[in-house]
Amino acid sequence: MATDDLRLRLRLTLPSGGWLGPGKAELMEGIADTGSISAAARRMGMSYKRAWTLVETLNAMFPEPLIQSARGGPDHGGAVLTGPGQRVLGLYRRAEAQAAAATADQMAELAALAGLDMSGRK
Amino acid sequence: MATDDLRLRLRLTLPSGGWLGPGKAELMEGIADTGSISAAARRMGMSYKRAWTLVETLNAMFPEPLIQSARGGPDHGGAVLTGPGQRVLGLYRRAEAQAAAATADQMAELAALAGLDMSGRK
Repeated sequence: MATDDLRLRLRLTLPSGGWLGPGKAELMEGIADTGSISAAARRMGMSYKRAWTLVETLNAMFPEPLIQSARGGPDHGGAVLTGPGQRVLGLYRRAEAQAAAATADQMAELAALAGLDMSGRK
Repeated sequence: MATDDLRLRLRLTLPSGGWLGPGKAELMEGIADTGSISAAARRMGMSYKRAWTLVETLNAMFPEPLIQSARGGPDHGGAVLTGPGQRVLGLYRRAEAQAAAATADQMAELAALAGLDMSGRK
């Protein structure tokens, strides 16, 4: 995504007050890609402590945990997305894509009002 | 909107790092409704100082100011949305509606995964 672009970010807020947004989605994606919370955190330039806090938050938000971390010290056993974790991440990414497509006209008008050059927009 | 529901929030992020989300949109709406920054702030349970900071932020985000505040002390002259302000707010609200409609399926699936009772959902 071009950095000179207007970007749309989605936050899904639960009645509990918990939410799922781009940061947690990226962390989940990193865990799925790397099999490790620490590697996912490193990729985002995030501290391990912060990533671990977000994992605990995500796991408390849904009835079943979204991330499973194996025993054996901090991340030594690796981490994976559970079935519900994979579904939640997939639904979030799908919602992002649907929302981006559905709001393309408004985003283009807002970008024009913001004085952004959208001529190179795909 | 029911409080036992999953809610979708949009944040539009500009290349400058500034963003427009539900809080700023609600403040702009309050100013349009009440003709006053302090009345809009009160309606949101927000301090006048905080509201004024947000107004300054909004006005710096776009080439033209979105909110015009008349002289005469703190809010004594009232405040209005400018033409661009009205357009930005309208586009944000329209984007919210479009995104909500386009992501209804994903939101329903996520709500089910979160164990929320969506039976009363309109």
